[in-house]
Amino acid sequence: MPAESRREFLRHASTLTLTIPGLGLVLAACAAPDDRARRAPGNGAGGQTPAVPNPDSRLDTSLPAAGAGTAAGPNAAAVVYARVDPALPALTPGRTQRIHFHSREAQIRIADDTVVGAWTFDGRMPGPVIHCRVGDTVEFTLTNDVAMPHSMDFHAAQIDPKTAFRSALKGQSVTFSFSPRYAGAFLYHCGTSPVLLHLGSGMFGAIIVSPREALPRATEFVLVQSEMYLGAPVNGVRPFDYSRMLSTLPDFVCFNGRPDQYGREPLRVRRGDRVRFWVVNAGPTHPCAFHVVGEQFDTVYLGAPPGSAIHGIQTWAVPAGGGMCFELVTDVVGEFVFVNHAFGHGQKGAIGRLVVT
Amino acid sequence: MPAESRREFLRHASTLTLTIPGLGLVLAACAAPDDRARRAPGNGAGGQTPAVPNPDSRLDTSLPAAGAGTAAGPNAAAVVYARVDPALPALTPGRTQRIHFHSREAQIRIADDTVVGAWTFDGRMPGPVIHCRVGDTVEFTLTNDVAMPHSMDFHAAQIDPKTAFRSALKGQSVTFSFSPRYAGAFLYHCGTSPVLLHLGSGMFGAIIVSPREALPRATEFVLVQSEMYLGAPVNGVRPFDYSRMLSTLPDFVCFNGRPDQYGREPLRVRRGDRVRFWVVNAGPTHPCAFHVVGEQFDTVYLGAPPGSAIHGIQTWAVPAGGGMCFELVTDVVGEFVFVNHAFGHGQKGAIGRLVVT
Amino acid sequence: MPAESRREFLRHASTLTLTIPGLGLVLAACAAPDDRARRAPGNGAGGQTPAVPNPDSRLDTSLPAAGAGTAAGPNAAAVVYARVDPALPALTPGRTQRIHFHSREAQIRIADDTVVGAWTFDGRMPGPVIHCRVGDTVEFTLTNDVAMPHSMDFHAAQIDPKTAFRSALKGQSVTFSFSPRYAGAFLYHCGTSPVLLHLGSGMFGAIIVSPREALPRATEFVLVQSEMYLGAPVNGVRPFDYSRMLSTLPDFVCFNGRPDQYGREPLRVRRGDRVRFWVVNAGPTHPCAFHVVGEQFDTVYLGAPPGSAIHGIQTWAVPAGGGMCFELVTDVVGEFVFVNHAFGHGQKGAIGRLVVT
Repeated sequence: MPAESRREFLRHASTLTLTIPGLGLVLAACAAPDDRARRAPGNGAGGQTPAVPNPDSRLDTSLPAAGAGTAAGPNAAAVVYARVDPALPALTPGRTQRIHFHSREAQIRIADDTVVGAWTFDGRMPGPVIHCRVGDTVEFTLTNDVAMPHSMDFHAAQIDPKTAFRSALKGQSVTFSFSPRYAGAFLYHCGTSPVLLHLGSGMFGAIIVSPREALPRATEFVLVQSEMYLGAPVNGVRPFDYSRMLSTLPDFVCFNGRPDQYGREPLRVRRGDRVRFWVVNAGPTHPCAFHVVGEQFDTVYLGAPPGSAIHGIQTWAVPAGGGMCFELVTDVVGEFVFVNHAFGHGQKGAIGRLVVT
Repeated sequence: MPAESRREFLRHASTLTLTIPGLGLVLAACAAPDDRARRAPGNGAGGQTPAVPNPDSRLDTSLPAAGAGTAAGPNAAAVVYARVDPALPALTPGRTQRIHFHSREAQIRIADDTVVGAWTFDGRMPGPVIHCRVGDTVEFTLTNDVAMPHSMDFHAAQIDPKTAFRSALKGQSVTFSFSPRYAGAFLYHCGTSPVLLHLGSGMFGAIIVSPREALPRATEFVLVQSEMYLGAPVNGVRPFDYSRMLSTLPDFVCFNGRPDQYGREPLRVRRGDRVRFWVVNAGPTHPCAFHVVGEQFDTVYLGAPPGSAIHGIQTWAVPAGGGMCFELVTDVVGEFVFVNHAFGHGQKGAIGRLVVT
Repeated sequence: MPAESRREFLRHASTLTLTIPGLGLVLAACAAPDDRARRAPGNGAGGQTPAVPNPDSRLDTSLPAAGAGTAAGPNAAAVVYARVDPALPALTPGRTQRIHFHSREAQIRIADDTVVGAWTFDGRMPGPVIHCRVGDTVEFTLTNDVAMPHSMDFHAAQIDPKTAFRSALKGQSVTFSFSPRYAGAFLYHCGTSPVLLHLGSGMFGAIIVSPREALPRATEFVLVQSEMYLGAPVNGVRPFDYSRMLSTLPDFVCFNGRPDQYGREPLRVRRGDRVRFWVVNAGPTHPCAFHVVGEQFDTVYLGAPPGSAIHGIQTWAVPAGGGMCFELVTDVVGEFVFVNHAFGHGQKGAIGRLVVT
C-alpha cells in the first residue's frame, strides 16, 4: 500500500470498525462456541475463509481471506514452549543500532495446552526487546513476509507516522530512522488499522531507552503485559478473535506473552540488589496495576527517568499503550510474587516470581 | 423539585439503581434486540412509554414516561452532521462570565448512519466549552426546558452542591456563582440521580480554567472523551440505554461527541507550535489513555497547571470524571493520530488526526 | 499447609484458574440464573456441594466442598445491618502493636434486602482498620478457624511472603512481624491462591501508616472500595461467585463493604476542617476514580505522604491493590457527595455524603 493512501485505509478501516454494532458483539459473545468461531473475523486459522461471512460485509473487505494463525508452521503439537528471557539486553557499544524485523505469522505455545496463531515481529510475541540510549540512532527496517499489510509504530520515536509508520504490503520493506528524545519503557506495535486487531494479535514489543546519565546500578528486567482474546482451536491452534477483543474480557493476561511463565521459572536476583522493572503495557485495553507481594517500590518514575520519581509505592497502574519504570531494593531474602493486582485480569496469568537469594 | 428534597431524591434513586440485579443486566444484554429495547429504562424515544415495564417497578418511578430522545425534533434523516470545533475559545475581556444554559433534548447526528436522542445542555453534546481564569467569577443559570429534572455540577466549583447543584423541574431555573480556585481541565455534567443516566445520556462538557499567569504560548484544543451506550433505533433515532451503561461495554467512544470526527476533519497546526490538549474524560466509566502517534508529550500536568509537570510521556490515563493538560511541540511536519490507546475502547471512535504543516 | 509447599499450591491453583476458558465464563453469564448458581465454583452457601461439578474438574480440587457463605450463622433474616465507622482509629501510645485476627466465615447484611456470605478477617468486611506509624512494629497473628486455607498479605510489609504470608489450615496460626518503611494507605488481604477468589470474597482491609512527622491536623477517614460479585441467594444469603469475579461486571461497588452506607448515614465534619481521606482500593479489579462533588482536593499524595504532593485535583484514580491519601479543606458549609466517578461502577454503591456544618 503506497504511503499516501494509508490515511484513507486507516480512516476506512476505522469507520468499518465503528459500524459493528455493540449489540452484535454481545450477541456474538453469547452464541455457541462453534458459531462464535465462524463469526470471528480473525479466525481463519488453517487458511480457511470464514464459513459464515461477517454480517457486516464491509468489515470483511478489510480482512484477508485467511486471518491470524495461517502460518504453514509445524504441526501444533510439535510447537515447543520457550520461556521469554526477561533480562534487559545489554547496550551495544555504538550509538547507532540497525534493526531489521520481518512481520510474519507464527504458531506459539503459550502454555502446555495452548498454541496460538499469532501475527508477529520476527516470529516472536512479544517482539525482540530493543535497548538504546537517549540520543542514539535507531535505523529500522520492517519487511513484510505475509499477505496482510503490516507496519511499525515506535512510541519512542518523534517522526511523521504517515510516512514512517506506513503499512508494507507483502514483500515490501519500510525503512526509517529516529533518535529517542526521552528515556523510558516504550511500546512498539503494528499500527495498521484496525490497530486493535494488529496489536491484539501479537504484534507488540518493548523499546527501552536508558537515559544518557546511567541510572543507579540495578538488575534490570523487561515485562510486557498483554491481553489475549482467542477463538476456538482449529487444528490445535487458537486464533486471535477480533470480536472478543472488542468485548474486553480476555482469556489470558500475560507478562511477555505466556501466562504464568515466571511462576514456572522465576526471575532470580541477589539480596541487596536494586531491581528495575521496565514495564510496558501493550494492552490492548486494560491497565496493569503492577505490584510485588512483600515489597514496596522505593521509586516509580512517572516521567522519563530519572525525572518525576515518587517513592514508597505498593501498586501503580501502567495504562494500555504506556510504559513505566519501577525500582525496589531486595533487602530481604525470599520469594516475591509480582502481579497485575487488578485480579479479575491478573489472575488470568499476569503473575510471576522474583526469587531473592 | 425543591432543593431540600434533592438529597432524598438522590438517595432514593441511588438505592433504586442498586436493586437492579447484575444478573438481570447480563441477561438483558443477551436478549434479542427488540426485547432489549423494550426493557431499557431510557428507551422511550418517540415519546412512547416502555412497552414492557422494568421488572424493578421502583426504578420506573424515577424515570419519566418518555426518556431520552423524545425531542420533537426534525425528521431524523434531516438532522445534519456538524463537526465540533475543538479550539479552546478565547478568554473574554472581563473577569465575570455570565453563562445561561438550557437543558433540553436534541437529536444529534454523530455519524453518517447514526442519529442519537440525547439529553443536552443547549442542544449540544458535549455542551459548550467554558473558558475562564483562576479567580474569575462564573455566574451560571440553568433553565430546564423538559419534563425530566436536570441540574448542573461544575467540577471547577467549590460550592455546596446540595443547593447549587440541585435539580430544576420543567420551567424552573437554578442560578449560582463560583470562582475557580485551581487551573485545569474540568468536567461539568448533570448531577441529577442516577448520575450515570444523566451524564451518560449526553449532559456533559468542559470548563477550562487557565492559570492567572499565562502558560507558554500554544495552540490549544479541548477534547472531551465520552462513551455512548445506545439502544436500537426508533424512528431513526438511537436512544441512550441505561442497562447498557451499567454493562460498561460501549458502542462508541468519542472525542467531542462524534466517533472519528477528527479523522474526518483533522486538527491543524504549524510546525514549531506548542500544542496544548485540555483533555476531559466525561466517561461515564472508562479511562482515556491519551496518546499521540509519532510524538511524546514533553509535559503532562498532573495537578493544576503549571504545577506538577512531568516530562517525556507516551501515554497517560485520564480517569472518568477527571481532566488533564497535555503539551507537545511539533518539531516535525506530518500527520499525527491521537487516540485513546486503550484500544478495545479507543477503536470505537476515540481517534483523530493532528496535521502539522 | 506447610510453608514450603505454598508456592506449589499457588502455582497449581493459578494454573487451574488459567484453564477456565473465557468463553465458558461468558456462556455461564448468559445461562439461566439457576444454572449459573450451580456452575459457580464459590456457591456452596448452605453447606452444599455444587449440584453440578465444575466442567474443569481440576478447578474443583482447589475449592472446598462448601464454599463462601457456609458459616453456621444466625438465620439470614436476623442478621442486623451495621454501619462501618469510617473514622481513622487513633494511634496507640506504644510503638509495638499486637494484632490477632481470625479468618472465619460470616453472614453480613450489606443492605436492607441483601445478606452476603463472606470470607472475613474477624467476621468483618472490610477487616478492622490498623493504624500505625512508620517504624512501628506490627506483631501479627492469623488463626484460621475454617476448613478453607487462608493467609494474610500486608502491602505495608517488606517481608518474605513465602514464609510470612503462607496459608494456615484450620486450627493453625501464622505469626510474623514487620515494620512499615513508608507512610500511606495500604491494602491487606488474604493471599491464598486464587487470590481473586479470597480477596473477592471479603478478605481485605486497610492498614494506615502515618508518617513519623505528623501531617497537618485533619479529620481523617478510611474508605476501602471493593466490588462484590454475588450468586443467587441460598436460604436468604448471597454467596460470592468466582465466575462472576472473572466476568469483571460487579453487582455492587462499595465504600467499606456496604453500598450507599454513607449516603444513609453521612460523614460529618466542621467548616474549616482539613479532611483527609485514606482511600484503599481492594478491587479486585477496577480503579476507584475518587471525587468529591462541589470540592477539589487541595492535595493528593502520589507517593508516601508527605512526599509527591500534587494540588488542585478534581478526580484521581486509585488502582486495584493500591491506596492513596486525599486532602481537602472545607471552606464551605454544605453537603458534599463523594463518589467513584467511574459511574458505571460507582453508581452501584460507591457513593457517600460528607456533611459540613
